[in-house]
Amino acid sequence: MRAAIVNGEPIVDSSHAIAIGDRGLNYGDGLFETMLLKDAAIRFMPQHLARLSSSCSRLGMLYPGDALLEAELGAIVKGHRDGVIKIVMTRGVGGRGYRPDAQSAPTRIVALYDTPDANGMDIAVRWCEMRLARNPALAGMKHLNRLEQVLAQCEWSDGQIAEGFMLDYEGELVCGTSSNVFLVRGQELVTPDLRYCGVRGVMRGEVIRLATQLGISVHDEPLWPDDVASASEVFVTNAVRGIRAVVSLDSLTWSRGAVTQALCEALNTHA
Amino acid sequence: MRAAIVNGEPIVDSSHAIAIGDRGLNYGDGLFETMLLKDAAIRFMPQHLARLSSSCSRLGMLYPGDALLEAELGAIVKGHRDGVIKIVMTRGVGGRGYRPDAQSAPTRIVALYDTPDANGMDIAVRWCEMRLARNPALAGMKHLNRLEQVLAQCEWSDGQIAEGFMLDYEGELVCGTSSNVFLVRGQELVTPDLRYCGVRGVMRGEVIRLATQLGISVHDEPLWPDDVASASEVFVTNAVRGIRAVVSLDSLTWSRGAVTQALCEALNTHA
Repeated sequence: MRAAIVNGEPIVDSSHAIAIGDRGLNYGDGLFETMLLKDAAIRFMPQHLARLSSSCSRLGMLYPGDALLEAELGAIVKGHRDGVIKIVMTRGVGGRGYRPDAQSAPTRIVALYDTPDANGMDIAVRWCEMRLARNPALAGMKHLNRLEQVLAQCEWSDGQIAEGFMLDYEGELVCGTSSNVFLVRGQELVTPDLRYCGVRGVMRGEVIRLATQLGISVHDEPLWPDDVASASEVFVTNAVRGIRAVVSLDSLTWSRGAVTQALCEALNTHA
Repeated sequence: MRAAIVNGEPIVDSSHAIAIGDRGLNYGDGLFETMLLKDAAIRFMPQHLARLSSSCSRLGMLYPGDALLEAELGAIVKGHRDGVIKIVMTRGVGGRGYRPDAQSAPTRIVALYDTPDANGMDIAVRWCEMRLARNPALAGMKHLNRLEQVLAQCEWSDGQIAEGFMLDYEGELVCGTSSNVFLVRGQELVTPDLRYCGVRGVMRGEVIRLATQLGISVHDEPLWPDDVASASEVFVTNAVRGIRAVVSLDSLTWSRGAVTQALCEALNTHA
């Protein structure tokens, strides 16, 4: 971590910054956003803040407003051209018990990290054994209850495997451990609809928007492992790494295809 | 909070005690235990530590050993006769990403709180609208991913309602928001088997043990709302409040029954 601001105050000692009673720590009662800083610009900042605001509303947490967060983001990136910014917002400090205290103000953590290694734009992935539980009340949000993703990433240590695909307990394809999944099927682009679980990624939304601009038919629907096996192209998206082509999944292989390439170029050019 | 010890060190400022990068905060990547201190004794300490150790093993976290935790528990309760002790153990401080750092040592937080108000031993409960997601890989553990319980407790503010009963997404009865549920059906005691979700409470285990000692047939199995409606007695258990008789659930009513009373007396006498 290069720098952090907690509730508007720059943090000198990041190892002693958060309260023992913070509800983020005790219950995962909060949300986060991960944004890319590139060439001194925060990519898709309005979309990240819109998702955070919408998820705060779903959790019954007070959203502090775009202006305050934009000011803190501006402060944290000052003097930096590249990096990854993480916002964590929790329901604040509370007592011992699940019920939130109506008086507690949310905790805002805005931190700047190094950009991760590029790790290749054509990646190998695997199937995870860990399944995702279905809970429509939590689906789509980037909340802090992430044990499933943590345990899924614990399943492999082979550095050649960049991502793991996850199914839910009914066997539907949901996502990668930290990415959304897109498939090219015939002339159309499809992605899981995330009605039961998974994170509705900002980059997922951008890819849908770009595909529409390029005249590519795109929609979300329930998808299954068979749909992956029969896809002509597979790629994953996230806010930090953009679009990465999947070139292998266990014994299946693909080449980077025309649709994936067109979307990569559109993302680099227009977005 | 009256006092806290983090990684063996007494904490002076509990509002600045935890690292921004702690995985408990960022992912709910950890576990907790809540224990009752009564008459200067920590009730069921071996059972709590056994569950913590077993859950650490399931999550792939290093359990620090009974001796170390017993020493820290002894230090935190010194000079106190009553209270509630909470242990939070996280996977420790890590970087930005779900995958744990093999080098990171767990974070141990041992804190002492006031005993909550008695709140009555005969309670009114309600049905929660929030459902629990099914994930056998996480079932039974008291892990830090607790958004479902938080949102369930947000559903009501009527102080006369002490607890809410939760179903999973298939409609099975699982638990209260912070308790296990027992039903008396004919001559036997039954409780949800928690194979898909819910916390395997220490007090739940004690009640099963006491019932067996008293010659009451007891077992766990899948249960449904109809089983609650047809039960002759209903009670809930947790480590802090022991056994509480349920005397109403929306329009259903019960009296404190003989089995509930016998178990309460056995808990106070023998356990």
